[in-house]
Amino acid sequence: MQASNPKFKKLLAKYKEISLLAEINRILSWDLNVNLPSKASMTRAGQAAYLAAAVTEKWLDKDFYNLFENLRENQDKLSQEEKAAIRNLEWAGKFYFRVPKEMIVEKAKTASEAFMVWQQARNKDSFSDFRPYLEKIVGLDRLIAERLGYKQNPYDALLDLFEPQLTVSFCNVIFGQVKNELVTILKKIKESKKYRQENKRLESESIFPQQEQRQIALYVLRKMGYDLEAGRMDISTHPFTDTLGFGDVRMTNRYKENDFKESLLIAMHEGGHALYEQGVKQDYQRTPLEGGVSLGIHESQSRFWENQIGRSKEFLRFLTPVLHAFYPEQLLRFGEEEIFGLFNRVNPGLIRTEADEVTYNLHIILRFELEEALISEKIKVADLPLLWREKMKKYLGIEPKTDREGVLQDVHWASGSIGYFPTYTLGNLYAAQITHKLKKELNLGRLLERGELGTILSWLRTNIHQYGSLYWPDELIKKVTSEELNPKYFIDYLNVKYGGIYRI
Amino acid sequence: MQASNPKFKKLLAKYKEISLLAEINRILSWDLNVNLPSKASMTRAGQAAYLAAAVTEKWLDKDFYNLFENLRENQDKLSQEEKAAIRNLEWAGKFYFRVPKEMIVEKAKTASEAFMVWQQARNKDSFSDFRPYLEKIVGLDRLIAERLGYKQNPYDALLDLFEPQLTVSFCNVIFGQVKNELVTILKKIKESKKYRQENKRLESESIFPQQEQRQIALYVLRKMGYDLEAGRMDISTHPFTDTLGFGDVRMTNRYKENDFKESLLIAMHEGGHALYEQGVKQDYQRTPLEGGVSLGIHESQSRFWENQIGRSKEFLRFLTPVLHAFYPEQLLRFGEEEIFGLFNRVNPGLIRTEADEVTYNLHIILRFELEEALISEKIKVADLPLLWREKMKKYLGIEPKTDREGVLQDVHWASGSIGYFPTYTLGNLYAAQITHKLKKELNLGRLLERGELGTILSWLRTNIHQYGSLYWPDELIKKVTSEELNPKYFIDYLNVKYGGIYRI
Repeated sequence: MQASNPKFKKLLAKYKEISLLAEINRILSWDLNVNLPSKASMTRAGQAAYLAAAVTEKWLDKDFYNLFENLRENQDKLSQEEKAAIRNLEWAGKFYFRVPKEMIVEKAKTASEAFMVWQQARNKDSFSDFRPYLEKIVGLDRLIAERLGYKQNPYDALLDLFEPQLTVSFCNVIFGQVKNELVTILKKIKESKKYRQENKRLESESIFPQQEQRQIALYVLRKMGYDLEAGRMDISTHPFTDTLGFGDVRMTNRYKENDFKESLLIAMHEGGHALYEQGVKQDYQRTPLEGGVSLGIHESQSRFWENQIGRSKEFLRFLTPVLHAFYPEQLLRFGEEEIFGLFNRVNPGLIRTEADEVTYNLHIILRFELEEALISEKIKVADLPLLWREKMKKYLGIEPKTDREGVLQDVHWASGSIGYFPTYTLGNLYAAQITHKLKKELNLGRLLERGELGTILSWLRTNIHQYGSLYWPDELIKKVTSEELNPKYFIDYLNVKYGGIYRI
Repeated sequence: MQASNPKFKKLLAKYKEISLLAEINRILSWDLNVNLPSKASMTRAGQAAYLAAAVTEKWLDKDFYNLFENLRENQDKLSQEEKAAIRNLEWAGKFYFRVPKEMIVEKAKTASEAFMVWQQARNKDSFSDFRPYLEKIVGLDRLIAERLGYKQNPYDALLDLFEPQLTVSFCNVIFGQVKNELVTILKKIKESKKYRQENKRLESESIFPQQEQRQIALYVLRKMGYDLEAGRMDISTHPFTDTLGFGDVRMTNRYKENDFKESLLIAMHEGGHALYEQGVKQDYQRTPLEGGVSLGIHESQSRFWENQIGRSKEFLRFLTPVLHAFYPEQLLRFGEEEIFGLFNRVNPGLIRTEADEVTYNLHIILRFELEEALISEKIKVADLPLLWREKMKKYLGIEPKTDREGVLQDVHWASGSIGYFPTYTLGNLYAAQITHKLKKELNLGRLLERGELGTILSWLRTNIHQYGSLYWPDELIKKVTSEELNPKYFIDYLNVKYGGIYRI
C-alpha cells in the first residue's frame, strides 16, 4: 500500500518490524509442529517467548502509539487503504494497548501450564485435574474482557478478539435459527430408511497406502491452483496452514491408512486457507492489510473447498476415475454414487473434528452457549461436564460416556482461546452464502464435472482473496453477495443436499 | 556457567539475547536450505537480514560494551570459565567493535551480490563475469583486515576470524611440510602397480536406492551415538550441520543412486560435527562458552569420524555384512578387502569436495597460497585462473580445462569467506593427532571391528566435546594430546595406510 504522508510512512515502517517478527515466529511455530526433535521443546519455547516479547515491545513502543493515535484522530485526509490500516491496527493493538502487560504475561503462562495439564487430564479422563486451570483461564478472561471493554456482554470482548465486531446478540440470533433447523434436519435424516441401512464396510476392509493419498492430495491442490513453488505440504498431528511470509504459505496433512477420504478433505480444507493467503496482493505484504481478514472469512474459504467443492456430487464424479486408478482393488467396486455417499454420510458422533456437515455446527453452538454462560457467570466451570452431556443429548441425541470424549476433547479452552469456536460456524454460513452468489455467475456444476477449478479460484481471487484485510467481514460479505450474513443459504444448501441423499 | 558477580551476570544476560537471536537465525537458515519454496527467497532474505541487524545492534549496545570492557580490564578476580568467556567475546566481538558498521553492511551486500553472480558465472564458465565482484571482496577484506589489525600479514587478520590466533607464518611452516610429503606420497602411489590397475566397475554398474542409503546412514549414526531425539537428518544440495539450539542439532545428507559410499561418509562427517555440538555441557547453553570452539577443531571431529573411523579397515569390516544385506545384488561380490579398497581409492581430481584423503589437503594448500598472495597484494584477482592451473599441475599433476572446474568451483570466495579454507586442513591434522592419542588409551581396532563406537564417543566427550569453547584450539590440542599441533601424525597415518593399500 502507498502512504500519503511521512507520518503514515513512519507508522508503516514500524509496523513492518512487528510483521517481520511475527513472520519469524511463525517459521519457528511451523518448524515446531513439523520438525522439532522432542528434546528441544524447552529450547524452542525460549526462542518463541523471546520473539513474542519483542513483538509486544514493538506494540508498546510509545512513538508507534503516538503516530497511530495522531493518524487515527485525523482520518479525514487518509485514503481508503490507510483508514482500513488504522482500523486494523486499532483492532489488533487493542489487546496490547488496553490489557496490562502483567495480565498478558499471566494469561500466556497460565495457558501454557493449562495446555500441559489438559493433555494429561484428557489421557486420564480426569476433568477434575483440569478444572482449576480452566477456572483460572476463565477468571483471567473475565478480567481481560473488562479491560478490553464491551457494550452488552463481557463475552463480546472475547468474541471480537477472534472475529472483529462479533457479538453475543448477533450469534444468538443466527445460531438460534441454525440450531433449530439442524436439529430438525438431523431428526428427519435419522428417521429415514437410508440412514438405518447405511453400511460401514469401506473403512473396516481396505488399506490405502499413504504415498498414493499424498499424490492424490497434491494433484487436487494443483488443480485448485495452490502454488507449490510458494508453499509445501508436510505432515503434522493436527493439520494446519500458516503464512511464513510472502511466497511461503505452507500447509500440513495427515494420513490414515484405513481412510482415503480424510487426507483429501484436509488438503482441500487447508488448501482453501492457503489459496486465500496466496491470493492477497503483494502490495499488502508486511502492512496492516496483509493476510486474510478474519478467522470467520478464512474458515469460509477452507469450508468452501472442503464441503461446497470437495463433497459435491459433480467434483466427486470428476475425481472418481483418479480414485479408481490409484486404488483399483480398494475402490473400483464403488461407483460415483457410492463414492459421493461415502463422502456425505451423516453420522452424529461425539467428536467435533470428525463431524459431518449437518452435525458439525451443533458441536460449535454447544460450545458457544457454554462459553457465553461461563464468561457472563451464569454457570461455573464445575458445571461443564454435566451441561455438556445434557446438550449433546438434546442436540445430537447422543451422550459421551467419558469427559475425554466430551468436555476435554478440544485444545481451545486449554490454550486460552475462549471465543474462537463461533468462527467455525460463521465460516460454514459464509461459505454457503458465497457459493450461492458464485453459482449465479459461474456454471459451478459444469466446472466441477470437468475439474476446471481454476475458474473458481479466479472468481474467489477477484472477489475476496486479493483484498486481504482491506474490508472487514461484514463489509466483505456485503460486497461479495450484496447481502448481510444470512443463515438461510446454509440451511437451504443442507436441505437440498441431504434431502436428496436421504430421500426426505 | 556460573557468574561470580552482578556485572558478569548482566553481561551474560545481554549475551543471551545475542545467542537467542543467532539461534533463531540458524532456524531460518536451516529451513532455507532444507524447505524453502523457491518463490520465497526474497522474503527469507528480508527476515534473515532483519535478525542479522538485530544481532549487530546487540553487539554494538553501549552498556554491553562497557560491561565487557570493565570485566576485561579486571580479569584477575574472574574464574577460568569467566576468563574464557571474556576472551571469546573479545574474539567474536572484534568484527563488530573494530570494523565500521558501514563496512560490515557493504561487505554483506557485496557478498550477497557476488554469490548470485558467481552461480551464473560458474554455469557459464565465465571467470570474467565474476572477477569484478571478487576484486571488490578482496578490496573490502583488505580494508577490514586493516581495521581488525594484525602483526605481520594482513591475511592473519582474516585467518583469525575463522580460527582464533591462526597466522600465515604458522600455516607456512605446517602446510609447507604437509605439501612436500603429500606430493611425494602421491607420486609414489601413481607409480604403483595397483594404481595403474584400479577399475571403476562399481560406480558405473549398480543402482543403490536412496531409501536403503538413508537406513544405513541412520544406523551408523545411531551406533556413533548421535541422538535422533535431539536432532534430525534431512536432505539438502550441500550437506551441513547446524545447532538450532540446545537439544536441536540437525544435519543433512544427499543421495546419489549410483554411489552407496558418499551418503555414508557424509553422514559420518556431519555426524562428527553434530556429536561435538550434542556433547557440549548444557550449562554452557546461550553463554559465550557454547558450541564447538573453532572451525578447525570442529573439522577434526568430522574428519575423525569420516576418515579415521569411516574409511578404516576395521570399521568397514564390521559394516560389510550390513552393506551386503541391504544391497546383496550390488555388493555381495565385494569382500571386506574390496569394500575397503573402494572407500580408499586415491584418484587425483579437479574438484576439492570429491577429493580423497591424500589429495584433499593439496587442494586446500593451493587455495591458502592464492588467498595469502591476494590479500598481501602479491598477485591480482585477474591472475587467479592461470595460477590455479599452474598449481594444480604442480601439486596434483592435472589441469582443469575450464574455470568452472578450477577457480570457480567453490562458494567460499563468492560468499566472502576468505580465510576459511585452511581450517579444513587443520581439521585433518588435528584428527590424526587426536587419533594417535586415542589409540594409546583405547584398543581402537578391536572396538571398530565390533562396532563399539559408543566407547569412542565417550572418550571424545570426556576429552573434547564437553568443554565447548572453554579452551582455545592450541590449549585444547595440548590438553588432549600433550603436544602442540604436529603434522607428523597425519603424514605417518597416510604413509602407513596408503603404503599398505598401494604396496609402496
